Amino acid sequence: MLGLRPGRAVRLPDRVATEEPLQIRVQPPGGGPIDVAVALRTPGHDQELAVGYLIGEGLVEAADITAVVGCERPATGPATGNVVTVGLTRPLRRTVPERQGMANASCGTCGKTSVDDVAVRCAPVAPGLVVARTVALEVPSRLRAAQVLFDKTGGVHAAGELTAAGEVVAVREDVGRHNAVDKIVGRLALAGALPAHERVLALSGRIAFELVQKAAIAGFGVIVAVGAPSSLAVDAAERLGVTLVGFVREGRANVYTHPARIAVDR
Amino acid sequence: MLGLRPGRAVRLPDRVATEEPLQIRVQPPGGGPIDVAVALRTPGHDQELAVGYLIGEGLVEAADITAVVGCERPATGPATGNVVTVGLTRPLRRTVPERQGMANASCGTCGKTSVDDVAVRCAPVAPGLVVARTVALEVPSRLRAAQVLFDKTGGVHAAGELTAAGEVVAVREDVGRHNAVDKIVGRLALAGALPAHERVLALSGRIAFELVQKAAIAGFGVIVAVGAPSSLAVDAAERLGVTLVGFVREGRANVYTHPARIAVDR
Repeated sequence: MLGLRPGRAVRLPDRVATEEPLQIRVQPPGGGPIDVAVALRTPGHDQELAVGYLIGEGLVEAADITAVVGCERPATGPATGNVVTVGLTRPLRRTVPERQGMANASCGTCGKTSVDDVAVRCAPVAPGLVVARTVALEVPSRLRAAQVLFDKTGGVHAAGELTAAGEVVAVREDVGRHNAVDKIVGRLALAGALPAHERVLALSGRIAFELVQKAAIAGFGVIVAVGAPSSLAVDAAERLGVTLVGFVREGRANVYTHPARIAVDR
Repeated sequence: MLGLRPGRAVRLPDRVATEEPLQIRVQPPGGGPIDVAVALRTPGHDQELAVGYLIGEGLVEAADITAVVGCERPATGPATGNVVTVGLTRPLRRTVPERQGMANASCGTCGKTSVDDVAVRCAPVAPGLVVARTVALEVPSRLRAAQVLFDKTGGVHAAGELTAAGEVVAVREDVGRHNAVDKIVGRLALAGALPAHERVLALSGRIAFELVQKAAIAGFGVIVAVGAPSSLAVDAAERLGVTLVGFVREGRANVYTHPARIAVDR
């Protein structure tokens, strides 16, 4: 690629974040496999992505999963073997549309057919987790410090799982911000660590409606994001009992919902 | 909402970007209306959004449109009247899945069913447009200066239409970056100004695969984005003849594809 620099142009090696389709497939008992969705994702942690997607969409619960097979490593060829199959003890908990939606880079609500069908039902998150103001303000810089792929390519979002004290437990990067969250949720599910009541979810970008739903389904009580939320995201967080902290920069941030989880005096 | 500030917390008025579902409906001749998609969008320029979405998805061409009716102003109540109907002279040019996909904040490829079906066919963009290096480097700051909604809420993406000399012709803001592009494309279609061969498309965020497709279908030869592209976006731009400039900051940028449209010596 060509690098435009002050007063000149230079040849540079190509460095872009990889984006490839992943087929997410389930295998319920006593029947054939079902293709649920295709995710346009950055290869890596694909089993986590598949599991996190299925849980976040309310299609399966962690206890339903018997086995996960398929591309754990990035594919070497073009889209070969980009399939993950999740074995289940029971049928899907929700209907998959006959023609499946594309769960692409940041599409969390594919397959919905009407305005009234947008909200996925999930129970409010229990209170309990408390995060210090000073920790909340540092979450984005701690997430950023762990974004290896962003440093190389600049084109990826990140989601992180942090303790209430601000320690980074896991970070996942992806061209799609929904995928990054799905990978974090899938990691927790595969580790038997759901619900994530004691953890903070960190986001590198804006807070979309579907990300709040995914976080609530996984049990996160606090979301801290570099970007700001939309009105639907605020509504969902209010209803689902999630504390939303956003628009964090230079020692300032906004707490949009449920501020009781933020200790403002420490 | 609560504002976390250095050493203290303050009460602030709520300011978030509005996000509401919009039903995009078409009315072909000799039949009932068809619900094509639901977009989670920031109200405003909704007719542009509906038209731009339909064109960008290859479902209609500008010449097929006879009339556009529905919520041109933001709805005053909750989701009341959030429907735009586009009248057509002929049937849709592509099949809409039986169960329609949700075209949510940044979902450009809903309704696709398999890995092989991701690419929407469109002809390569003609060469011709040339943009000076110095102009390309200034596009993000010019777009940013026109982002009224971002200044208020921080939670919105923007797409802009600029001349080759860098003048801003139109800017559209939305919680979904795909929606912002759809609104720009719809504006051009409704003004009879497609294809946009003489215009530059500016993006406030990353360059996703579907945004390149939408830009190419509208005839934009040059995309300049603050963020970086994914590998699929670069592949699509290469194939469709679109010049991708991204990762622009502090007088530096990368030209990922078709650098002939960038005049590096001026």
